[in-house]
Amino acid sequence: MLASMTSVATGAPTVGIVGAGQLARMTYQASISLGVRVRLLAASAADSAAVVASDVAVGPPTGPAVDRFAEGCDVLTFDHELVDADQLACLEASGSAVRPSADVVALAQDKRRQRAQLGTLGFPIPPHAPVRDASDLVAFGAEHGWPIVAKARRGGYDGRGVWVLDGPEAATALVEHTAASGIELLVEAHVPIEQELAVLVARRPGGQAVVYPVVETVQQDGICRELLAPAPVAPELAAAARELGLGIAEAIGVVGVLAVELFRVGDRLVVNELAARPHNSGHSTIEGCATSQFENHLRAVLDWPLGATTPAAPAVATVNVLGSADGGDPVANLPAALEIEGAHVHLYGKAARPGRKLGHVTALGQDLDETRARARRAAALLVGRGAAVGIPT
Amino acid sequence: MLASMTSVATGAPTVGIVGAGQLARMTYQASISLGVRVRLLAASAADSAAVVASDVAVGPPTGPAVDRFAEGCDVLTFDHELVDADQLACLEASGSAVRPSADVVALAQDKRRQRAQLGTLGFPIPPHAPVRDASDLVAFGAEHGWPIVAKARRGGYDGRGVWVLDGPEAATALVEHTAASGIELLVEAHVPIEQELAVLVARRPGGQAVVYPVVETVQQDGICRELLAPAPVAPELAAAARELGLGIAEAIGVVGVLAVELFRVGDRLVVNELAARPHNSGHSTIEGCATSQFENHLRAVLDWPLGATTPAAPAVATVNVLGSADGGDPVANLPAALEIEGAHVHLYGKAARPGRKLGHVTALGQDLDETRARARRAAALLVGRGAAVGIPT
Repeated sequence: MLASMTSVATGAPTVGIVGAGQLARMTYQASISLGVRVRLLAASAADSAAVVASDVAVGPPTGPAVDRFAEGCDVLTFDHELVDADQLACLEASGSAVRPSADVVALAQDKRRQRAQLGTLGFPIPPHAPVRDASDLVAFGAEHGWPIVAKARRGGYDGRGVWVLDGPEAATALVEHTAASGIELLVEAHVPIEQELAVLVARRPGGQAVVYPVVETVQQDGICRELLAPAPVAPELAAAARELGLGIAEAIGVVGVLAVELFRVGDRLVVNELAARPHNSGHSTIEGCATSQFENHLRAVLDWPLGATTPAAPAVATVNVLGSADGGDPVANLPAALEIEGAHVHLYGKAARPGRKLGHVTALGQDLDETRARARRAAALLVGRGAAVGIPT
Repeated sequence: MLASMTSVATGAPTVGIVGAGQLARMTYQASISLGVRVRLLAASAADSAAVVASDVAVGPPTGPAVDRFAEGCDVLTFDHELVDADQLACLEASGSAVRPSADVVALAQDKRRQRAQLGTLGFPIPPHAPVRDASDLVAFGAEHGWPIVAKARRGGYDGRGVWVLDGPEAATALVEHTAASGIELLVEAHVPIEQELAVLVARRPGGQAVVYPVVETVQQDGICRELLAPAPVAPELAAAARELGLGIAEAIGVVGVLAVELFRVGDRLVVNELAARPHNSGHSTIEGCATSQFENHLRAVLDWPLGATTPAAPAVATVNVLGSADGGDPVANLPAALEIEGAHVHLYGKAARPGRKLGHVTALGQDLDETRARARRAAALLVGRGAAVGIPT
């Protein structure tokens, strides 16, 4: 399949994306400018990207559906990690361009492997250990002090799959619960987090890479609620975070976008986790940078020159729109939100459910506080909570 | 149908676009952010917008296909003028939201009517007259001096349908030719154009309107080749052009985007023609303004608050990509063009043919000349003419 990428003169190359969530949706939107063809393998025809794309196969992200899907694509990429890395390795062996590679996908989907590999490579990570049974947790707590943080080895997101344990009793209860559900665990020392940051890198097969401005990711209940760019941190720390991002991207040989989530502890950075795909922490790049993470992901997996990541404004703030408790559809509130000067609204076309990520709002400005306040106002209006931030409803 | 627009709480409204060219393609791209549903009525499934959109009906832009199409839409809008204004008036009478209205569409598609109405309203236009036969042209030339400009009453674009006539002989020859083809004509005095400008306005049904920075449209062989924003003109002239745009939009009651093409003669502005839809002269708004013409067209026809038109940079230049003589596909040259710093490439997914509009490149910068040079380089590389602008191929 790689062969056809070298003969694009006869037409645009086709990028296949396994998964059709909002990341694929925004990647699809970016592909329209480039004239690149994007095919999607969607779990459901109602998926966020599937409802807007013209070329959608419906099927699971593993098994024969993926093999069939790959046949029609010049390069295969992903909007989530729920794929079968062994299957991807077979596709690679038979000549498919899989980007990021099966190896990198395996790393991104396995927190235990991430910890081991990043540790071996010398990147800053917290003390950690695999967990077979409760005694491993208890021993780890005894050695590193309580609380400790247990994590599901695979599949956790948005705060799911992470448990802060304050003592042996909680540890035993967790292991009973997870063992029954077949969830494998690892354990890490509790990091006294002062700030959560993220740095995004886009990297081509040959190694050319660009790094985005470091963002602060403001979390609530384990879910990223806001992005602030540039992250309000010391310039040396931001520079160190960017170096760290570039270093990890190079070390693991990622192709496409790599998101590196970081904890700041004083003036120290600790790697939290990696995602080898466009990432929630990069939404602010759509309006906030010269080239969005979505366009650069496409350019990277096609081995095309990457675009500049120059900030478009001194301050960029993104606020996520989570479904309100009453299940109201934010589309109904669009006219109110669009009254907010300079609010760039993105809705994902997903059915509204309480707590579900339904969209985001980005604002650009001169001052981070003012910009953040504007993005917050528009996001609050979208979920009918204008009053909560001082806006008459 | 309007009724369902007021109950968007049950889901996103559906905007139907008659026509599926590159304007519809970029409008579709903008709709993905807003979560608005866009349906297309495409003449062919291979049309620029049809290849990227998920909901496409294929059929002619007139007749029963349009009636059927309108039934599934909350609001009907257009990416070209090749529609039947009488049919649209019937749809309006039966309750459909047609935006712009049938009246405005009729005006946009009929240059004779445009001249008459703009003249009556007191807007600056050149001397003009309808043409029944060659004697009208000869009499007009005798009165206003040769050369004169004959124009097809309907359907002309990109320099087609415009003839500069230097005397009675040319006039007679033209009338013989056009009469045989059933082309109706009007005639205008030849304007000693010093610069061509365009101003875009987006207007809601209630009258709220925003106006974009005035652009210079650099023409070659009647085809717009470049956009320069802000237009290098005196501030008073730019202000007058914006006022003129807003005044015409209000006077004709347009809903959606209105493009007003202008001639500058000294410090005087003369209206050339109107287009009541997103327009080629607004491509630079995608990266160059806080809100693109495409997003504001959607917001306007949905009667939603309009977005700011604030420039994103001191200088914005857009260069159109026309098919090269060898019929080469610019997609093949994308990797070369993307090497140009800050080149925002848009390809329309159309089959390459010599002279066909296949895409455009926009660059942002501090200085118009430098910015224009960058956009030109990328556009030249896309059509394999890097050498022509000093780039080794």
